[in-house]
Amino acid sequence: MRDKNTAALTPPMGFNTWDCYGAGVNEAQLLANAAYMRDRLKDYGWQYVVCDIQWYEPTAVNTAYHYFADLCMDEFSRLVPAPNRFPSAAGGRGFGPIAEQIHAMGLKFGIHILRGIPRQAVHRNTPTVTPGVTARMIAQGYSVCPWNPDMYGVNPDAPGAQAYYDSLFRLYADWGVDFVKVDDIANTEFLPHNPYSAKREIEMIHTAIDRCGRNMVLSLSPGPAPLEQAFHLKTHANMWRMSGDFWDRSEALDKMFALCEKWYTHVSPGCWPDCDMLPLGVLQLTETDPRWRARKTRFTENEQKTVMNLWCMFRSPLMFGGELTMNDDFTLSLITNRALLEIDQHSSDNRPVVSAPEKAVWTCRDKDGNDVYAFFNLKHEAQTLSFCFSDGDALYDLWSKETTALPDGALTLELGPRESRVFRILHKENKA
Amino acid sequence: MRDKNTAALTPPMGFNTWDCYGAGVNEAQLLANAAYMRDRLKDYGWQYVVCDIQWYEPTAVNTAYHYFADLCMDEFSRLVPAPNRFPSAAGGRGFGPIAEQIHAMGLKFGIHILRGIPRQAVHRNTPTVTPGVTARMIAQGYSVCPWNPDMYGVNPDAPGAQAYYDSLFRLYADWGVDFVKVDDIANTEFLPHNPYSAKREIEMIHTAIDRCGRNMVLSLSPGPAPLEQAFHLKTHANMWRMSGDFWDRSEALDKMFALCEKWYTHVSPGCWPDCDMLPLGVLQLTETDPRWRARKTRFTENEQKTVMNLWCMFRSPLMFGGELTMNDDFTLSLITNRALLEIDQHSSDNRPVVSAPEKAVWTCRDKDGNDVYAFFNLKHEAQTLSFCFSDGDALYDLWSKETTALPDGALTLELGPRESRVFRILHKENKA
Amino acid sequence: MRDKNTAALTPPMGFNTWDCYGAGVNEAQLLANAAYMRDRLKDYGWQYVVCDIQWYEPTAVNTAYHYFADLCMDEFSRLVPAPNRFPSAAGGRGFGPIAEQIHAMGLKFGIHILRGIPRQAVHRNTPTVTPGVTARMIAQGYSVCPWNPDMYGVNPDAPGAQAYYDSLFRLYADWGVDFVKVDDIANTEFLPHNPYSAKREIEMIHTAIDRCGRNMVLSLSPGPAPLEQAFHLKTHANMWRMSGDFWDRSEALDKMFALCEKWYTHVSPGCWPDCDMLPLGVLQLTETDPRWRARKTRFTENEQKTVMNLWCMFRSPLMFGGELTMNDDFTLSLITNRALLEIDQHSSDNRPVVSAPEKAVWTCRDKDGNDVYAFFNLKHEAQTLSFCFSDGDALYDLWSKETTALPDGALTLELGPRESRVFRILHKENKA
Amino acid sequence: MRDKNTAALTPPMGFNTWDCYGAGVNEAQLLANAAYMRDRLKDYGWQYVVCDIQWYEPTAVNTAYHYFADLCMDEFSRLVPAPNRFPSAAGGRGFGPIAEQIHAMGLKFGIHILRGIPRQAVHRNTPTVTPGVTARMIAQGYSVCPWNPDMYGVNPDAPGAQAYYDSLFRLYADWGVDFVKVDDIANTEFLPHNPYSAKREIEMIHTAIDRCGRNMVLSLSPGPAPLEQAFHLKTHANMWRMSGDFWDRSEALDKMFALCEKWYTHVSPGCWPDCDMLPLGVLQLTETDPRWRARKTRFTENEQKTVMNLWCMFRSPLMFGGELTMNDDFTLSLITNRALLEIDQHSSDNRPVVSAPEKAVWTCRDKDGNDVYAFFNLKHEAQTLSFCFSDGDALYDLWSKETTALPDGALTLELGPRESRVFRILHKENKA
Repeated sequence: MRDKNTAALTPPMGFNTWDCYGAGVNEAQLLANAAYMRDRLKDYGWQYVVCDIQWYEPTAVNTAYHYFADLCMDEFSRLVPAPNRFPSAAGGRGFGPIAEQIHAMGLKFGIHILRGIPRQAVHRNTPTVTPGVTARMIAQGYSVCPWNPDMYGVNPDAPGAQAYYDSLFRLYADWGVDFVKVDDIANTEFLPHNPYSAKREIEMIHTAIDRCGRNMVLSLSPGPAPLEQAFHLKTHANMWRMSGDFWDRSEALDKMFALCEKWYTHVSPGCWPDCDMLPLGVLQLTETDPRWRARKTRFTENEQKTVMNLWCMFRSPLMFGGELTMNDDFTLSLITNRALLEIDQHSSDNRPVVSAPEKAVWTCRDKDGNDVYAFFNLKHEAQTLSFCFSDGDALYDLWSKETTALPDGALTLELGPRESRVFRILHKENKA
Repeated sequence: MRDKNTAALTPPMGFNTWDCYGAGVNEAQLLANAAYMRDRLKDYGWQYVVCDIQWYEPTAVNTAYHYFADLCMDEFSRLVPAPNRFPSAAGGRGFGPIAEQIHAMGLKFGIHILRGIPRQAVHRNTPTVTPGVTARMIAQGYSVCPWNPDMYGVNPDAPGAQAYYDSLFRLYADWGVDFVKVDDIANTEFLPHNPYSAKREIEMIHTAIDRCGRNMVLSLSPGPAPLEQAFHLKTHANMWRMSGDFWDRSEALDKMFALCEKWYTHVSPGCWPDCDMLPLGVLQLTETDPRWRARKTRFTENEQKTVMNLWCMFRSPLMFGGELTMNDDFTLSLITNRALLEIDQHSSDNRPVVSAPEKAVWTCRDKDGNDVYAFFNLKHEAQTLSFCFSDGDALYDLWSKETTALPDGALTLELGPRESRVFRILHKENKA
Repeated sequence: MRDKNTAALTPPMGFNTWDCYGAGVNEAQLLANAAYMRDRLKDYGWQYVVCDIQWYEPTAVNTAYHYFADLCMDEFSRLVPAPNRFPSAAGGRGFGPIAEQIHAMGLKFGIHILRGIPRQAVHRNTPTVTPGVTARMIAQGYSVCPWNPDMYGVNPDAPGAQAYYDSLFRLYADWGVDFVKVDDIANTEFLPHNPYSAKREIEMIHTAIDRCGRNMVLSLSPGPAPLEQAFHLKTHANMWRMSGDFWDRSEALDKMFALCEKWYTHVSPGCWPDCDMLPLGVLQLTETDPRWRARKTRFTENEQKTVMNLWCMFRSPLMFGGELTMNDDFTLSLITNRALLEIDQHSSDNRPVVSAPEKAVWTCRDKDGNDVYAFFNLKHEAQTLSFCFSDGDALYDLWSKETTALPDGALTLELGPRESRVFRILHKENKA
Repeated sequence: MRDKNTAALTPPMGFNTWDCYGAGVNEAQLLANAAYMRDRLKDYGWQYVVCDIQWYEPTAVNTAYHYFADLCMDEFSRLVPAPNRFPSAAGGRGFGPIAEQIHAMGLKFGIHILRGIPRQAVHRNTPTVTPGVTARMIAQGYSVCPWNPDMYGVNPDAPGAQAYYDSLFRLYADWGVDFVKVDDIANTEFLPHNPYSAKREIEMIHTAIDRCGRNMVLSLSPGPAPLEQAFHLKTHANMWRMSGDFWDRSEALDKMFALCEKWYTHVSPGCWPDCDMLPLGVLQLTETDPRWRARKTRFTENEQKTVMNLWCMFRSPLMFGGELTMNDDFTLSLITNRALLEIDQHSSDNRPVVSAPEKAVWTCRDKDGNDVYAFFNLKHEAQTLSFCFSDGDALYDLWSKETTALPDGALTLELGPRESRVFRILHKENKA
């Protein structure tokens, strides 16, 4: 009986290029963010630097996909980084040199891929690693991504299919990849009437990682992953998206509370339902894209803290989406609250206690055995929340670092619009 | 305001190669069936000889699609007949010589196409008829057929898209094509959450036919076409499938009664909801295909007549699916009942009168103004049906050609398992 | 084979009390509207005066239903008019005296009922017309209306069920009822997973009308009636609602165009898909109801004409919903356009020709064989519509009564926001 | 912040009358089963004796509901036991005397109710416990059970609604009730388009139990409870049904594996997703019911063990459905396997490990910290299952009580049709 790897015993923390650079990131940008992480964040547990979609597409500059563009591909139908965007990849070295630099910073390196085999390989009918098996022979011709033109699904019943995935992950292992975000794969109910290959491709990828000789986090996108498939997802992946792409919109944040409530029982070591990237700081820097315009997050400061509080109380992976080097002090403070990050990394029994219209309360036990409570006002106006603790309890605020005694155990919180608070509970007996 | 063509003022009658030859028909088979039609059927109104799917695929031999096979294509990304299967197409003459021969028999010629542009054209990025517009520029990369790998949908918003369809139908007009069955297009609700281009491709094809300089029947497949889209279908096509593929199964026949009941109000000159091919006679001759095995229709003789009776009372197109040259006398008699075929071609006010579990009654007015009634026993055992006509009416049976008087107007019919009967009503006053 | 009655060979035209009085109308109000109809509208074809819901509920005063109120009921579990609201009903005379007065005006009388048997009869277990069969024995205990508390559905399999419906319609025939609007019955897909009795109750009611000895229009509510059930509805009813309640909102009017496009093939003598009441003039007079407030229709004058134009081009029943006696001149002019009303009553081949976003064109043939075209601008701003007629055609405007010649057949119409125009086409040859 | 009671810290174990007596159980039958439990089962942890539906209906004799029968009701519109069936209830003593006898046996007593207020109370408009509030004023007239005619839902917004539920549970507390199975309430998505009151009635019932002064288990029926509502169910109830009624059919058992896989993360103290009654032994004794016929369970012996193994590995409540006094030795042995019952009551980390077509493996940790594995062959023929343990592990079979050593850790199990096995794992280090 095969077990999953040990790559994600705690929720992965890192940076991902999508929210700031879309499909057009380059080597310099990637390394600049890595350097920032080494200097300012590593000490807090942040470690993954993840290069998102289409690093194999030479002409990608923003979020637009160039349908049927010529992609950089090796002799076994495997996509490789475009050297004009990632100069160190020249000479067939792939992401090896970049991974090496990032490892030298004490960090880990991740990449994004789309499930499947390049359509260009299939139509050129190029070889795969298996002698006699060409790309055409393992492609599932009707299994395509509804929003990106690069790949066909892989037919799990075709001889050579598993070997192709094995060859991909051996290549990534050679490069030194530590984290793979696989896309067009988590929403396995997307095309219910279609013979969609995604579910079995998850299984092939799990197998390929087990065989590749390197510990790698497997992250699945996009959501919504179907709750009914929780056991399958837990069996085969380290993290998976509960929602479609999360951006800095109040309604999306409200919806995330409902999703966390549905999925929280599936949070466990190695298995992390994923709230998606943190759209904080400076976003969407791809100036040539008419749909994107560089800007600060649209969330208010209260909402930014609420994002961090919910992600951590739920134990979501934390993947920062903004351009790190442009962080202001407030943004940096959000992701360097050591007490809060410890909740994300090491708490247990995390669960909602109250789920009412426009308010929520979550609780967990921190690594020292203390109860922790988070109170959320989801209204766009002020609201008073009450809660009963025990006589003599005291509350330590994880943001203000102030302690408040509750002689009679009764808490009455005046919360501003969209404000939230997280407290460690100091029980009388513990304090004695 | 543009009207549709006059190509199908009555329901088209003909022969189609799919039910007997799948994707593998060749020139000799096609012409042998045409010759039979000329000799035995033309006099009854049968006229279309239609070559079904994948005539451009050199290696097709049965119903199997060879995923990503090399297709025969001209310099403007248009598919052309494979000369190894259609020798007269050699030298770039396409279907011209075959159409010419069929026209010389006094018949008409039809072909099958899939909506869209060949994927091979897109990935090779070959030219289209519009200077500067390549295949890649007009393809819809996410719009693919769920059961066949040949095409991408055409993006209706791309410059050059309409011109591409125009170039296709001008080519077909040059060849002398009279009938085009377009596939992967009628079930426009197939992928409801997907940006599927089929609906607007129907409109582009309608426009291309109007511009091509030749009268052509436009037939859409496969069904189920959505009832809610009836007005759109009537506006743009001559016939469209109400169901998925119809084969010789009792349950499918039962279901067709329900479909006819839903669609009958949309039957009108130029607009023919389609019950699909007649799976009669000898079927599935593609011996190399493990899924097919040459055989006679599975329908009983009663059911075979019921098929003909329903198709004609509803005024469906009549497309024979068996290998014509292998017809026995009974099969030939089914499709040469002149009185019944006249109902199909020239009756009016066709409608269900009774729709009850396991029985049905349909009526219409024939071209001479007589009432016609058809009685269907859908049980697999005998059943008695009763009906009230007027005193002194008489019934002329369209199959037995016998007349029965009804002195008191009361009809009591003993029908065998799955049997049906069609009567012309002779009213007393008319007989005087 | 039983045919439906001849009560609605043309679309019924009349007045209904719901839009102005909700559930609280009284005898004086009903008769005042009848008198207005006699004096001002009868000459144009208006004839039905219909008393809507809950005339058997003594305390009803507006649109509110008093859950479980005591209802007026006779000895056979049949509801009868509340004498405090309809004084002439005292002494067990029911609606007889009112019907008599309305008939004396040369008009016809209609009532509203809910399918089923009163819950109060079931729980009191009162007798029905069948000896030995009590209300309890024919009720379907789980078949209830989702918005009104008065009735249980009738179990079609219970002995005495049909007899109960027969007894209802014999009573209505005795009263002199000409039109019955049956509610909670047309949307037969409302509770798909429930053993809902509505479909078979339609059949029982059809039978009861056939047996009652009086010609009565059967009108079914509320919609949306399912398009898939068109044949069943046509077999058993004279009119049925295509939509939920129609009120004076632009979006509802836009939606009605789509519904007419779906249903138009089912319009035929005796069978009238129903666009619902005309919410014109003065509406919602029930002052004690906090949700209603007496007011003029919210439709602009253009929209009011558009409502009349669409209803008539489609051949919908016309049931005026406003308080007739409060009509101003404009409102009266809307419903006394004789040429337009003749389209509603006597045209043929009515159908959409153009269905595009924010515009529509409908056509039909009037009773003299002239083509009629209606052009609709559905935008909330001005729009130009073009259309090609034949050289030398002329257009007669049914509202302005002006004629415009089209020397070259080309029509260019400047239409204001939400404006529509209806023209009779005068062909050159006809004019000669 | 209110917490749930402590009534079900382990999964409730008991007997329920439905599977053997339907709606017609009587006092003697109930007490005979209680006596059996005291004598043969109590020592193994079985304790609840639950009287299922319609104890308030004097004429109930089997599974048929007599629509609108006269029910026994007290002066505050509360249903009480029918004295002809439960003689000790005479004189207004309700279930008090029975509860007292059962308590005297060292057991606990439970009853079944339907959410809502009797329809007979509503139509008679009888008082409730709140002065001035009658039954009619708190009923939700459109909220009815789709399969039983007794009740209306309670309108949660009506003054007096909570007080009515409070009065019910105070009465049950007075009687000495320890367990309440509330029906027509768990499948809160049953009527999605309907203003169904069930969800908020769950909340009212939770509140009423908190206020009633007695610890009571709250069990919700029928399923399928919606997985999306897991948090709501856990907040308000002790157990809830994952499925519709479970009977002794192989397909239903197969389906239960899938349900357990979906729900297992929600199993926790006080919160028990419920596999439903155990249809074992002798069932359906209601001889007057044509649909039921006294019989032994249809499950094979292998399947009967599989039921017990799955229910216990999942930690479902265990409610025996057969007539206890007719148990044969095999049946008794099924429910007195002390080691297996301890898994049900005291294990942790229960979860599926393998979920494949026609086989399953579940694991948990027993109260002594040993790993436990259950292997299920779901095929109707023999099957070999393999699994890898550690070198030197040994397996203790919970049914045969034999121990098998696995020198190299490899287990190969030959399982008969539908057979399952449960093993406690003895790790080498533990054995030392």
